[in-house]
Amino acid sequence: MPEMIPADSVGLVTAQTMRFDDPLQLECGRVLAEYALIYETYGELNAQGSNAVLICHALSSDHHAAGYHSMDDNKPGWWDTCIGPGKPIDTRHFYVVCLNNLGGCKGSSGPATMNPETGKPYGPDFPVVTVKDWVNSQRRLAEALGIEQWAAVIGGSLGGMQVLQWSIEYPDRIRHAVVIAAAPKLSAQNIAFNEVARQAILADPEFHQGRYYEHDTQPRQGLMLARMLGHITYLSDDSMRAKFGRELREGKLNFGFDVEFQVESYLRYQGRAFVEHFDANTYLLMTKALDYFDPASQCGDSLSLAMKQVTASFLVVSFTSDWRFAPSRSLEIVKALLDNNKKVSYGEIEASQGHDAFLMPIPRYMELFSAYMARVVEEVR
Amino acid sequence: MPEMIPADSVGLVTAQTMRFDDPLQLECGRVLAEYALIYETYGELNAQGSNAVLICHALSSDHHAAGYHSMDDNKPGWWDTCIGPGKPIDTRHFYVVCLNNLGGCKGSSGPATMNPETGKPYGPDFPVVTVKDWVNSQRRLAEALGIEQWAAVIGGSLGGMQVLQWSIEYPDRIRHAVVIAAAPKLSAQNIAFNEVARQAILADPEFHQGRYYEHDTQPRQGLMLARMLGHITYLSDDSMRAKFGRELREGKLNFGFDVEFQVESYLRYQGRAFVEHFDANTYLLMTKALDYFDPASQCGDSLSLAMKQVTASFLVVSFTSDWRFAPSRSLEIVKALLDNNKKVSYGEIEASQGHDAFLMPIPRYMELFSAYMARVVEEVR
Repeated sequence: MPEMIPADSVGLVTAQTMRFDDPLQLECGRVLAEYALIYETYGELNAQGSNAVLICHALSSDHHAAGYHSMDDNKPGWWDTCIGPGKPIDTRHFYVVCLNNLGGCKGSSGPATMNPETGKPYGPDFPVVTVKDWVNSQRRLAEALGIEQWAAVIGGSLGGMQVLQWSIEYPDRIRHAVVIAAAPKLSAQNIAFNEVARQAILADPEFHQGRYYEHDTQPRQGLMLARMLGHITYLSDDSMRAKFGRELREGKLNFGFDVEFQVESYLRYQGRAFVEHFDANTYLLMTKALDYFDPASQCGDSLSLAMKQVTASFLVVSFTSDWRFAPSRSLEIVKALLDNNKKVSYGEIEASQGHDAFLMPIPRYMELFSAYMARVVEEVR
Repeated sequence: MPEMIPADSVGLVTAQTMRFDDPLQLECGRVLAEYALIYETYGELNAQGSNAVLICHALSSDHHAAGYHSMDDNKPGWWDTCIGPGKPIDTRHFYVVCLNNLGGCKGSSGPATMNPETGKPYGPDFPVVTVKDWVNSQRRLAEALGIEQWAAVIGGSLGGMQVLQWSIEYPDRIRHAVVIAAAPKLSAQNIAFNEVARQAILADPEFHQGRYYEHDTQPRQGLMLARMLGHITYLSDDSMRAKFGRELREGKLNFGFDVEFQVESYLRYQGRAFVEHFDANTYLLMTKALDYFDPASQCGDSLSLAMKQVTASFLVVSFTSDWRFAPSRSLEIVKALLDNNKKVSYGEIEASQGHDAFLMPIPRYMELFSAYMARVVEEVR
């Protein structure tokens, strides 16, 4: 817990909830009659409403991107390295908005919240939401907050996909797009990993067809396996080697199936910790949103065609050791932008941390990110 | 099923079983008082006993490496592409031996066979066997078959590790070592994938602490997940893209959790099929043998030092798209051999199929393999 809040922190923050009762048409064909979105904001919206930045979160994060909820918090929001006074997303200049996406489990409407039609948790009846649905719901939140156009929409991984969708869907509402460690669609291998994770959850006897809330249980083992697997794909082979090597927890082989190698201990810990604060149905939904994202599919598989109407300027960032969404995947986005003569800056950051690098304060990355955002600030003034 | 046996097949083959009642001391400290090994042989042992070749199998394969068990078989042994008249391991010249390793589930003593002390299946009481234990048991089989020295010991993946161990442990008993798509030890990432696979099995409620035979059940879901995950690591991202892309099984999104993408359908099919013919306890043991293999650990982590006494000549083969055991891992073996001025040929085969490439008849690979084995034949004559 922070004895004192660091000077470059946004400080103590409080989440707010916005309720919507105008029905939201979803891509799956269903309609959400009402829903709530939980969000946080950092910094002040200027009089012109021109300095707003939207942060889109990745698979398992939420609206709490920066600062502390209380003096007892032992860690800040998930992207505190990048959001705050003097940081790349400088809250002295920007009004930052971050929400928990629809289908989430941290306060926005999702499988664990009450279905007004039944008075019970939605469970499996919560619709399969897509990146496009999220962007539509984010647009409504923007309107409710008095933001007509984002100075920038920013996100890493699945968050970067939302940024892409914003730039395609609402070109007039986004001036800058910052797409970090993302891809314009999942590869078959990416989908395959998601499928194993989903099967782990669906096959857990405690899953009860997604109605585990009513059985007062949860598919802990399945969700734990899903997280362990996910975690492997977030780290690079090199970073795992550096972090764990083949170190044995007790210094010798046990010839049994308890934890032996440090990496096993770490993964089990990560898996167990995750289960304490995440919902399995939400995990299923988030992986589906990843699988489905493919804006080029509507344009004969041409991303260039899909991005023809884009007007935002782009910063695209990738990390050398990211094998989940390798630099070559970011370059597909860059190419589509260049095909259309759009403005794009691209940085491939030398980093050993794998996909997780996008969350880390790697100096070259912070410099590039800060320099780009400084240009955005210039325009706002 | 083969209407006719192809001319380059070893033809109809029959497995044999050898029983041993001289106790086998294992690395874990325990002793197997008696055990059986099931094996097949192809070709004829020559009078001098100098043309014998041992094939070591990988994680989930067995003693049935080539030919057909009956005219009703719909496919031949797992390495039929490489074993037979005119093939790299030419049965006109070699006497080929392949066995199911100890702990296996295809006829050798293992968790599903009877524990003579209890009269019940061993289950979790079958000892954790290592690559070194396998090599020791293989040496006894060799002696029983009248083979003092192998012309070559050959294996891919985990099989390649056994070849390495043979060359280190019994330098006088092996003239050539062919190590394909292997590594001198697992990386933290490799161990991590194995750990997730094991947890999937161990957490399955049908596992019953490994005594599922007595409950007349098996941890199907866990083993299926383990296999699905393993399968992803056997294929390359490119080969999955070529094989499945993002093809939808029914041509459209379903917004649900049934199979949608072809890759999901393929993985589930692979997982289900595997469960029909493989034992979960054996899977656990095989992954542990992989994790533990690390001959350099006894020599201050110096593989060069570990391989000092090697006398065999080596062929080391890797495949460009293999990310489970990348070419750089094979080069660690090559380097250790060169450090000791040992004879080694190395081939890095351009191949898109990932780790599974070692099982495929890739022309450049077959040529290299055949050319090397032709030299071994020359020596035998």
